[in-house]
Amino acid sequence: MTDLLTLSARETARRVRAGDVSAEAVCAAFADRIAEREPDVQAWTYYDRDRALAEARGVAAGPLAGITFGVKDVIDTADMPTGYGSALYEGFRPVADAPVVALARRLGAVMMGKTVSTEFAMASPGKTRNPAALDHTPGGSSSGSCAAIAAGMVHVAFGTQTSGSVVRPASFCGIVGYKPSFGTLNRAGVKALSDSLDTMSLLARDVRDAAFATATLAEMPSLELGTVTAPKTVGLFRTSRWDLAEPATRDALDRAADALRAAGVTVRELAVPDEFERLYAYHDAVMGWETPRTLAFEHGPLGDRIAPLTRAFLDQLAKATRADYDAALAGLKDRAAILDGLLDGCDVLLTPAAPGEAPAGLAATGDPVFNKVWTLLHGPAIAVPAGNGPGGLPVGVQVIGRLGDDAATLTAAAFLEDSLAENRP
Amino acid sequence: MTDLLTLSARETARRVRAGDVSAEAVCAAFADRIAEREPDVQAWTYYDRDRALAEARGVAAGPLAGITFGVKDVIDTADMPTGYGSALYEGFRPVADAPVVALARRLGAVMMGKTVSTEFAMASPGKTRNPAALDHTPGGSSSGSCAAIAAGMVHVAFGTQTSGSVVRPASFCGIVGYKPSFGTLNRAGVKALSDSLDTMSLLARDVRDAAFATATLAEMPSLELGTVTAPKTVGLFRTSRWDLAEPATRDALDRAADALRAAGVTVRELAVPDEFERLYAYHDAVMGWETPRTLAFEHGPLGDRIAPLTRAFLDQLAKATRADYDAALAGLKDRAAILDGLLDGCDVLLTPAAPGEAPAGLAATGDPVFNKVWTLLHGPAIAVPAGNGPGGLPVGVQVIGRLGDDAATLTAAAFLEDSLAENRP
Repeated sequence: MTDLLTLSARETARRVRAGDVSAEAVCAAFADRIAEREPDVQAWTYYDRDRALAEARGVAAGPLAGITFGVKDVIDTADMPTGYGSALYEGFRPVADAPVVALARRLGAVMMGKTVSTEFAMASPGKTRNPAALDHTPGGSSSGSCAAIAAGMVHVAFGTQTSGSVVRPASFCGIVGYKPSFGTLNRAGVKALSDSLDTMSLLARDVRDAAFATATLAEMPSLELGTVTAPKTVGLFRTSRWDLAEPATRDALDRAADALRAAGVTVRELAVPDEFERLYAYHDAVMGWETPRTLAFEHGPLGDRIAPLTRAFLDQLAKATRADYDAALAGLKDRAAILDGLLDGCDVLLTPAAPGEAPAGLAATGDPVFNKVWTLLHGPAIAVPAGNGPGGLPVGVQVIGRLGDDAATLTAAAFLEDSLAENRP
Repeated sequence: MTDLLTLSARETARRVRAGDVSAEAVCAAFADRIAEREPDVQAWTYYDRDRALAEARGVAAGPLAGITFGVKDVIDTADMPTGYGSALYEGFRPVADAPVVALARRLGAVMMGKTVSTEFAMASPGKTRNPAALDHTPGGSSSGSCAAIAAGMVHVAFGTQTSGSVVRPASFCGIVGYKPSFGTLNRAGVKALSDSLDTMSLLARDVRDAAFATATLAEMPSLELGTVTAPKTVGLFRTSRWDLAEPATRDALDRAADALRAAGVTVRELAVPDEFERLYAYHDAVMGWETPRTLAFEHGPLGDRIAPLTRAFLDQLAKATRADYDAALAGLKDRAAILDGLLDGCDVLLTPAAPGEAPAGLAATGDPVFNKVWTLLHGPAIAVPAGNGPGGLPVGVQVIGRLGDDAATLTAAAFLEDSLAENRP
């Protein structure tokens, strides 16, 4: 039954619907995989094999029939505890499924369990290890969702991104992380951090599975990838923080650009506009104003019961002033136009997904420096694996598209994925 | 101690801070009022006199010191049940306070209890009666918050508006309902209906209290009203649905316009642009697409446990197509410009708050026809009481301002309130 583990999500659903294989058998194969890998990887904050199998037993139809999902622990589930990554809320049982969970289930998907999140999807890490190197972080905050995909424990997993919580750990784990345009996937029933930034996202093993799952959940058939055609021009955009890009990331970006060029795509190096730095300040002002207030309950009298790292992070964020926040909102009135300007006529941008390979140790989850601006601007951002760094760990690159033009962005990301595979030494 | 009930919220906080009166004494006075009026009005879904007094006992400082609040039952509270207006969730105890509740408490406010909401802040009414006429609806969905203010049970109450759930019931109850610009007040920890529309709002006895509480909670001192100056020009805007305005509303609008003119304000009748009807279609497309999906958990297998009226409403909404939704979002890219165009150079608009007096009976909560567009456009909207209709029940009018210009809108609303008081026969 090993092939059940390697089939794509879309092929799995097709076979389950056709009756060639039962959703329960699919679930059992992934459950075996979890049993094998979980002692090392520690991707799950809640997982009950019997519960998952019972859920799968009822499934035979639907566009997502039998596809196994991981659910980041900041996303509510009525039948599984939801601790928001915090000791404060350990064992809490919400009263309803978040809409994405309810929708996925209605469409035939099977929720395997809850994946580890940093506390409140911020900085204080959970127990999860990088499947590629157990003494390295998987990144965060969607730590368990990324590790579960990388370890082959589920087909797809839900994540959330406010700074770089999906694209960065996806890069560290060697998987695809897809933050769709703001508003594409419903984000109710999630522990909120920042109303202007929080974005429901997906982790998957390849771009086509990410596109298929999102197209289905968002009811946007235009996102499903058919034949993938080449983008005309890809803009190589190093950002104003290129000095933070380590050799692993520089090499990955070169590999990606080379693979695209080899496939006939024009890759054009773009100048980084002077105003780009201002977007970092905007992100920090928006999150700095919104997050400490959104966590007012936890950052108040309960402050001594949250992790010191979370408290310190909130204290740091809380230095943002109302004037900073107002200036940021004023500067962000037309995000689509800002993004359009940065793309400078290219179909998509190619840019770092993370500073380098996953840092050693489990005490920190890495720097979202190459993600913040793209979350702020609300457009689609996709981490695509691009080989390994000098340390032998995975490194990704990031594809950025126009606000609302997820179809072209996914297409370019899939084309890049194919080109990298063909180019593999 | 009767005067404790009539003092403004801001004067109450001043006296509590000065030690002239204790927060507990204030709370006790309102608790007595609740004991007297609740058997008739039925504003509360959860109220425990001892719990409220215990909360007040700890309060002596803060900008909102001793101000009594009602909390709409779709807003999470960790120490009081939160049933989202639904039999499905009766007795549910969330794990955290919503940020607005946590912030208000941190600033010294006292939460008296949870006020009745329609089911999920939609159409199926709760038990609450209109304090001005017990056999009439108070309106909805913020039914209990409005009735509690009108019956003098609290100084301020939280409400939420997705179509017309604050401004309409405020008009029916003869109180002030203030829906601030989208994003002004934190809306996390609320049972979501529509990410593009849900707006945290306040009910109060007068405009100055609403402005004061919002300025404090949003940390926007610019919203607090000092000396109120007259607006130069007010636009009288009858909307494209003026045929639904009953004599009560027509008269109220005349009284408001007359009072402003008597105070030296230019009131200019504005033409309703042809495209105005399209905004109704946009609202219905946005809510129609988002709400049934946001309530996917409740509208799915649990559908037989929610009220038939809620189910029918969701079924009706669910007729919106993805194409309708996409067209609406495309048409709404610059809400500020649309609103600006409608204001046509006036400082604010004067427009109906509701079709007329509160309808008879408790089976329905009235029509949000005069509210939907203003919620959709994200600007400030304020219901100001404007006397009584021919049936002897209260009727309000609505003041609309530019997106983000809540200060000017509140100022104009307070000026109107003063002018109406001076003009009272």
